Amino acid sequence: MPTTEKPLVISCPEPRSLELIFSREARRQLEQSYRIAECSELEIDALPAHILADARYIIGQPPLTSDVFEKLQSLKCIFNVEGNLLGNMPYDRAFERGIHVVTTGAVFARPVAELGLAMALDAARGLARNDRAFTEGNELWGLQSNLNARLLSRAEVGIVGFGDLGQALNQLLAGFHTVTRVYDPWLPPSILRENGVEPANLDTVLEKSDFVFIVAAVTSDNKGFLGADQFASMREGAAFILLSRADVVDFPALMAAAQSGHIKVASDVFPEEPVPADHPVRTTPNFLRSAHRAGALDAAFKQMGNMVLEDMALLDKGLFPMLCKRAERETVSRLRSAPVSKN
Amino acid sequence: MPTTEKPLVISCPEPRSLELIFSREARRQLEQSYRIAECSELEIDALPAHILADARYIIGQPPLTSDVFEKLQSLKCIFNVEGNLLGNMPYDRAFERGIHVVTTGAVFARPVAELGLAMALDAARGLARNDRAFTEGNELWGLQSNLNARLLSRAEVGIVGFGDLGQALNQLLAGFHTVTRVYDPWLPPSILRENGVEPANLDTVLEKSDFVFIVAAVTSDNKGFLGADQFASMREGAAFILLSRADVVDFPALMAAAQSGHIKVASDVFPEEPVPADHPVRTTPNFLRSAHRAGALDAAFKQMGNMVLEDMALLDKGLFPMLCKRAERETVSRLRSAPVSKN
Amino acid sequence: MPTTEKPLVISCPEPRSLELIFSREARRQLEQSYRIAECSELEIDALPAHILADARYIIGQPPLTSDVFEKLQSLKCIFNVEGNLLGNMPYDRAFERGIHVVTTGAVFARPVAELGLAMALDAARGLARNDRAFTEGNELWGLQSNLNARLLSRAEVGIVGFGDLGQALNQLLAGFHTVTRVYDPWLPPSILRENGVEPANLDTVLEKSDFVFIVAAVTSDNKGFLGADQFASMREGAAFILLSRADVVDFPALMAAAQSGHIKVASDVFPEEPVPADHPVRTTPNFLRSAHRAGALDAAFKQMGNMVLEDMALLDKGLFPMLCKRAERETVSRLRSAPVSKN
Amino acid sequence: MPTTEKPLVISCPEPRSLELIFSREARRQLEQSYRIAECSELEIDALPAHILADARYIIGQPPLTSDVFEKLQSLKCIFNVEGNLLGNMPYDRAFERGIHVVTTGAVFARPVAELGLAMALDAARGLARNDRAFTEGNELWGLQSNLNARLLSRAEVGIVGFGDLGQALNQLLAGFHTVTRVYDPWLPPSILRENGVEPANLDTVLEKSDFVFIVAAVTSDNKGFLGADQFASMREGAAFILLSRADVVDFPALMAAAQSGHIKVASDVFPEEPVPADHPVRTTPNFLRSAHRAGALDAAFKQMGNMVLEDMALLDKGLFPMLCKRAERETVSRLRSAPVSKN
Repeated sequence: MPTTEKPLVISCPEPRSLELIFSREARRQLEQSYRIAECSELEIDALPAHILADARYIIGQPPLTSDVFEKLQSLKCIFNVEGNLLGNMPYDRAFERGIHVVTTGAVFARPVAELGLAMALDAARGLARNDRAFTEGNELWGLQSNLNARLLSRAEVGIVGFGDLGQALNQLLAGFHTVTRVYDPWLPPSILRENGVEPANLDTVLEKSDFVFIVAAVTSDNKGFLGADQFASMREGAAFILLSRADVVDFPALMAAAQSGHIKVASDVFPEEPVPADHPVRTTPNFLRSAHRAGALDAAFKQMGNMVLEDMALLDKGLFPMLCKRAERETVSRLRSAPVSKN
Repeated sequence: MPTTEKPLVISCPEPRSLELIFSREARRQLEQSYRIAECSELEIDALPAHILADARYIIGQPPLTSDVFEKLQSLKCIFNVEGNLLGNMPYDRAFERGIHVVTTGAVFARPVAELGLAMALDAARGLARNDRAFTEGNELWGLQSNLNARLLSRAEVGIVGFGDLGQALNQLLAGFHTVTRVYDPWLPPSILRENGVEPANLDTVLEKSDFVFIVAAVTSDNKGFLGADQFASMREGAAFILLSRADVVDFPALMAAAQSGHIKVASDVFPEEPVPADHPVRTTPNFLRSAHRAGALDAAFKQMGNMVLEDMALLDKGLFPMLCKRAERETVSRLRSAPVSKN
Repeated sequence: MPTTEKPLVISCPEPRSLELIFSREARRQLEQSYRIAECSELEIDALPAHILADARYIIGQPPLTSDVFEKLQSLKCIFNVEGNLLGNMPYDRAFERGIHVVTTGAVFARPVAELGLAMALDAARGLARNDRAFTEGNELWGLQSNLNARLLSRAEVGIVGFGDLGQALNQLLAGFHTVTRVYDPWLPPSILRENGVEPANLDTVLEKSDFVFIVAAVTSDNKGFLGADQFASMREGAAFILLSRADVVDFPALMAAAQSGHIKVASDVFPEEPVPADHPVRTTPNFLRSAHRAGALDAAFKQMGNMVLEDMALLDKGLFPMLCKRAERETVSRLRSAPVSKN
Repeated sequence: MPTTEKPLVISCPEPRSLELIFSREARRQLEQSYRIAECSELEIDALPAHILADARYIIGQPPLTSDVFEKLQSLKCIFNVEGNLLGNMPYDRAFERGIHVVTTGAVFARPVAELGLAMALDAARGLARNDRAFTEGNELWGLQSNLNARLLSRAEVGIVGFGDLGQALNQLLAGFHTVTRVYDPWLPPSILRENGVEPANLDTVLEKSDFVFIVAAVTSDNKGFLGADQFASMREGAAFILLSRADVVDFPALMAAAQSGHIKVASDVFPEEPVPADHPVRTTPNFLRSAHRAGALDAAFKQMGNMVLEDMALLDKGLFPMLCKRAERETVSRLRSAPVSKN
């Protein structure tokens, strides 16, 4: 089709980039099907009026004033490729006008779930610790080295939060025949049961699990909801795997619980990132550290581009987006996690 | 029932012990149902004739001369709790007389498979390496630390050997939607397909996999069948996970392949165990070491006792053992792995 | 809480009734949590202004003029318990105001899928036909009666439409290891693949399947899209199972295809219901008839009430409905199936 | 290889035939790899001594005297293609000499399981009955016709007997999320649990199930073990599906239980086959009849030949048969079902 008829996309995916998000093939497809107006996040109100009027999609999460928003007369969907919804656009008007604001964070679910499973197995078997001892010449062998080892198969597992990530974890556990309990105050029990997990309150999840995975997003309600009392309520030797945001835990209390030997901890997130050189978490025993690398895989970013393309194709056909997750009127204001500063 | 009517069991489980194999409850059940004649492995021919004549079961793998074997007139089953079949008894006569010789190695399948999966995920994501760097203050963060990371989900996986362990691994992979190819010259293709894996020859398994698991038992035929050529044929950056016996590989070639960066290696077994203090494997890069601890879990040993009890109950009812694996006339002489010297 | 503070529900579920939809226990729960204003469908504009102003939910699908709609100031959600969306309310305003209009048709997915599977197995094995022959004394025995029999296990299966019902069917097929292809122009390929089925066009689905399930809703686009040419393109002896609406097929052509012996047909729906006494479908050979009874199970209706209660609870907490399916701005005008005249 | 070196097979598969068992391609493969000496069942002792001495395999279950048996010096395996083990050969000597006697009945498991599932769904939904009413012009529509309908999904299911057929049934139920209890006195509880079913005694299976499948082989112990008391103990309206042998039930009591409306019955087997023209089962209400056609599918017989070929290939390599099921010393004398008189 003639270039002038191609739908227009405004691209301002910072801190991501089109290179990061689109594979070579997907990029080719994007450019073949759409005109792209690239701009930096802060320049969008400087775009010519006809560009604003013509744009069908925005890739990115630029701040949009009400004024600019109304000029975006052809807009159908904003593809937020960060994962966090900032309060930087007039969401009410988006909902009224039927403009979708969607996120692509689902691409991280599998990678994070795989790292989470690796952490759980490491907590159960001490693989990293034994390898390091091997290097240092003081490894223990066989049964003697496994005195505290346990199996994930048929274990009791708790998952806190059952969004994309919790569900991906549950899928990875399919072959382990675990008893899995889930605490998620936002989901009705029947959906949890349909997924083969048992709805439970937070106390039960903490007290009855051999492995606890924390995959709840931070909201305005749950900052620091996991502290010393919660860790103390866990089973001796159980594993606590933190995968979402450091803000949901009282971090010093978490380090203390690991230090004491009561539980084993693994975490991909920290209160301050990068972690300061002298931070005690660097040497806390029974604590496996991962430098915020659970989701940030090239494969995940490239899947983001594919999702965007598939949903644009649906929208072009007059359908609604099905792969990206839509912001919802009811919950958009409660989701409050800090912006991503780097990939 | 009166003690004198309880069936008699000769117990000589060295190098295991009844304490290791039976939980407190299982031990109680064993003693309630059977009389136990304990003896060391080498004393069995010194047992009184009436004990030999009366014994229905042997727990252990004592050397049995033809002479002693014929005296075991009531014998129904020998429960080998080691896993390896030594050539130390007249198997031909056992088969003729219908005396089962069974092994309990299946209890290790799940624990070993879990450690194998942990190794694969570590090869994919560098969890141990990143944790160590964190301790040393030189960790990389996010995407930058994941340049060579990959997913197990939807990957191509190869399994060499599809006995209990290969099958347990395949079950753990259920949630990963992998394409799994199996090389096992002892199994007909239809059984592999029934298990949802693709039969393949060894070359294909090595060349087309992102993750290769070696779980084949050593036989008289396959000593050192994996060497430099095989490692070279693998995909760049693929993972090679060795879980069965060190004898199936050319170990120096395996270390060289890791050292060169061509593949990532994890191994639970070594040519000499414990590994000498100055052995180069201790510092080989891209090599994750585990000190023969994949299967030696207390939980696995206790399951052994449960299996023995369940099969004794079947045999007592005039049925055949179903949980332990029977030695087969056709293959018993080919299984040749070294005796277990410790647990 | 005092009665006056309970949220208000307007109930006009015709042609359903609260008795049909709510179990005794669910009804008790409904009445304990909400005030109910019952009215017939056509009386809603006669309700007092304070009732309209106060109502949080409507159960039913009454015609709503713009005028009445604006008076419903507290309205959060309309629970359509019919399944079909009529054009009898100002949907644009509902979307603008963020009032959900939801359907509960998902409750029928399992029952319909089970009947569909029963039909497929009957087409494969001739169970109904053989039972009738048995009664008449002319049954054939064993292999002789199975000359055209086939298995569903490992067969090639086609599904046209992959909404709730198509997905329920796919789940029931889990144990059959079929190769399943799906044609659904509204769904992106990646969602189909995620569900373990192969996206395909309609021709391929028809030509390559041993069993074809038609579970597509009628839309403004697909009336009569399956006719003589489509049936002729199917495999000799394949089964054609019609479960959604008779309007998607050319019914006389379907009867002809069954009559000729080219395919086997089973249908739960008919162009005119009840079917006239002299309609030829009553005696068409190779045609299994079911009198629109696939979904209308008491268990399904009672699940409807449970879904409504669970979603009301979510909405009461300030969340959005997750169990019922929301009408979407983009597609609401395309869904055009006739109103349900009876249960 | 020269014809004279091909291993020799004696073929006497009556009442089957090589044509029935082997597909054209499999037959070609059989003849390419083996010399075939065909004989009728009763002629085997008339075969020349060198043929007997040379035969590696027998396909069939001919009567073998001790005298003939000892002449079969090269014999490795007898492939019984009937399914029933008659007492017509010196089994003791077969076990002593390590000659396998194997059965191929597993090929019927899937076809029988599929018919059993069809029967269960018909009992739940009355498909055959409604179709017949449709033909006769007196069908009921919708909810009115479903007053006694039920779902298999999430139902409680009982299986009596957990051999190949019980396991195949359990696999087909994978997508239904049933609670499945199994009674099988020959299997240890842990094997049942490993298969995801709950071990239970017969009373519990009968009393707590909505659907009961009888797939137990007749043995010397269980003739007529299901009678009036057992049927009376079942839930009102539950389904009783008989798939193995009529001898395990008191057939008149079964008909009475269906006639009374207490349970719904479906059966593939009858005390006398073919059923006499005036047998009351032909018109018993709530009884779905199938003329011993559950397993006798061409596809099943052809799979038999494939199994035989795969196991011959294993035996030729010095391995043991893995696809066919071996007769066991302990149980061979208990399996007592009548010979198959026709396919």
